[in-house]
Amino acid sequence: MLNTENVGLGKVRSSIRELFEYGRKRKAEIGEDNVYDFSLGNPSVPAPPEVGEALKELIENCDPVALHGYTSAQGAYEVRKIIAGYTNSRFGTSLNADCIYMTCGAAASLTITLNALVNAGDEVITFVPYFPEYKVFARHAGAELVAVKTRAEDFQIDFENLKSALSPKTKAVIINSPNNPCGVVYGEEVIKRLVCVLNEHTKRTGNPVYLISDEPYRELVFDDSTSVPYIMNFYKRSIVAYSYSKSLSLPGERIGYIAVNNAMPEFNDVYAGVCGAGRALGYVCAPALFQRLIAKVYDKTADVSVYKANRDRLCSALTEYGYKVIKPDGAFYLFVKSPEPDAKAFSERAKEYELLLVAGDDFGCGGYARISYCVAPEMIERALPAFKKLFESYK
Amino acid sequence: MLNTENVGLGKVRSSIRELFEYGRKRKAEIGEDNVYDFSLGNPSVPAPPEVGEALKELIENCDPVALHGYTSAQGAYEVRKIIAGYTNSRFGTSLNADCIYMTCGAAASLTITLNALVNAGDEVITFVPYFPEYKVFARHAGAELVAVKTRAEDFQIDFENLKSALSPKTKAVIINSPNNPCGVVYGEEVIKRLVCVLNEHTKRTGNPVYLISDEPYRELVFDDSTSVPYIMNFYKRSIVAYSYSKSLSLPGERIGYIAVNNAMPEFNDVYAGVCGAGRALGYVCAPALFQRLIAKVYDKTADVSVYKANRDRLCSALTEYGYKVIKPDGAFYLFVKSPEPDAKAFSERAKEYELLLVAGDDFGCGGYARISYCVAPEMIERALPAFKKLFESYK
Repeated sequence: MLNTENVGLGKVRSSIRELFEYGRKRKAEIGEDNVYDFSLGNPSVPAPPEVGEALKELIENCDPVALHGYTSAQGAYEVRKIIAGYTNSRFGTSLNADCIYMTCGAAASLTITLNALVNAGDEVITFVPYFPEYKVFARHAGAELVAVKTRAEDFQIDFENLKSALSPKTKAVIINSPNNPCGVVYGEEVIKRLVCVLNEHTKRTGNPVYLISDEPYRELVFDDSTSVPYIMNFYKRSIVAYSYSKSLSLPGERIGYIAVNNAMPEFNDVYAGVCGAGRALGYVCAPALFQRLIAKVYDKTADVSVYKANRDRLCSALTEYGYKVIKPDGAFYLFVKSPEPDAKAFSERAKEYELLLVAGDDFGCGGYARISYCVAPEMIERALPAFKKLFESYK
Repeated sequence: MLNTENVGLGKVRSSIRELFEYGRKRKAEIGEDNVYDFSLGNPSVPAPPEVGEALKELIENCDPVALHGYTSAQGAYEVRKIIAGYTNSRFGTSLNADCIYMTCGAAASLTITLNALVNAGDEVITFVPYFPEYKVFARHAGAELVAVKTRAEDFQIDFENLKSALSPKTKAVIINSPNNPCGVVYGEEVIKRLVCVLNEHTKRTGNPVYLISDEPYRELVFDDSTSVPYIMNFYKRSIVAYSYSKSLSLPGERIGYIAVNNAMPEFNDVYAGVCGAGRALGYVCAPALFQRLIAKVYDKTADVSVYKANRDRLCSALTEYGYKVIKPDGAFYLFVKSPEPDAKAFSERAKEYELLLVAGDDFGCGGYARISYCVAPEMIERALPAFKKLFESYK
């Protein structure tokens, strides 16, 4: 009688949240320092100092009626203009303010984009492992999520699997590079092959496919040799779903944007669809103060060097203990192969050593567990002996 | 091929926005002071000083990782607890923190609530005149909006019309008191009759009907004799969609909440539906800084006495000139009877006098125009001669 789909969604807590809640209780029992919580993707480094300074300056110096008033539904023009200009200078695109639509973060960027593109019965493709809410977002928009298996050795795209998954119903492909939960980054060669496959599909079937790049982790890459190609330079029907949650350590403030590639022939319709979907979902405008903030700190990031150090420490120690890990090129997650086939059982056994790791099953990828290393380096040091004992318990 | 419904929504600007954009251009042509823009419901008084002070204090004194981090999807527990407690002390309810779900403002409160309740083919009833986005929100949730005509003389509920509109498909009734666009407030007698009709309907048909009270204007009532009854004290299956946009003059910041009445038998399912719908629509959490702000200023309001003075000045002057107005008890809108049957033609003619008034047709109520009087009192003084001439042009 109520909406059973949404009631069901509200009743089943994600296992990530479940594990986090277990951790809270366990910490109360045995002490904060004795539980090694690697469950959540909540940035552990503070926002850069420019954020607090800019917020205070805005509050002190702006007329509150203008500062806290409605912006246009697309977002304040000046803010969108700055983002378009910055994107053009970084990536050589030719965007203007009216290609940008300010959102309440990456989740909103995705739901709005999907509701702009999708009709009931469409399919949306993504790659394993993937952020579990993709399925929820696609379903609400009326589509089925089709999860395509990637290469076992490195989680890069398996193009034969992709070709088999493409169908006349395919409306969009979501990529997430750097990836949650495995940290893989798609290089330029991969992107080129991907767009080639999509173009071939469109040529053969007449069905255009939109490429949605979910980019909350774009700024979190750790090596000079790693670069994240900008999809608009490779594919016309591309849409970037961006968020400042991780780059500026502002995940609770819900600020991000959608950038629609103005090189696509039906740009006007797609952008209108974004505006319409934003209205229908109840997003009147993105939070105004944080829009103004972005105009001042659009090129700043939190100090992400901690994540690199955490990654390096964990990768080398876990490898030494005998774990098989895929060294992540970005984001702040490490995917570790479960020493037993059942990753849920591994996650349960890890709890005996006070280690909270999320089973990969939630990300469409059994046999692995996710370690969120957006944590204090000291916790990693305290946790390493537990990781060692956990692995030894399988011998 | 794209989602035609949302593309269509994005292409058709609401006539309110259309008029506002016309006003911007006209001001550039003939000067800011010579255009009398009564088109938008954007609060004209600043947020109370406590808002800026509390924001600065939070930014200065809180750990940024905690301050800007994710809250739980429902909202920060402490904030929800304060809101529940304040509601209980004001209205004698027995809510707790887990009856409250923090949202990105009233529009989000409504879309989330409708997506929790509605299945495809359901009907949602509201009363004429009504906020035009209700239709958009209901349609996206899969329901049809059924607009019930009210009494011609005062826009109060016509209960015979309501009874005719109720059907086995009716899932919810939305009330909006004080009302946008006519400022009518439903007194206790009206609410009692309304719930009586709904209870009779449920008894006869076995179909429960949810009463959604859309309350962005609750704090904007101007006379001691006017009070806005709290629906939870009258009806078990009630849900309050609240927003701080108008009461604290923070419309761009998107902060409000849903309160689900814990007296309803299926409370757990409805609240779970709210949580699930929030997830599916992409609302990860309400903006964290503004959640913390609300914990500090939950009982404050902007200085709304300006709106009362504006109302009184406009009502008496327009009546003197010959207009027929419904004196509003709350909100900051005045509904004026068009001197000609076609309110759109009236709105067009008003432009010749540089007066920007929204035709009532958009609110499901032709023959009237909306005057948003959340404006500077000086603009009203400058506009009054134009109102006089406009009326005289019909003689």
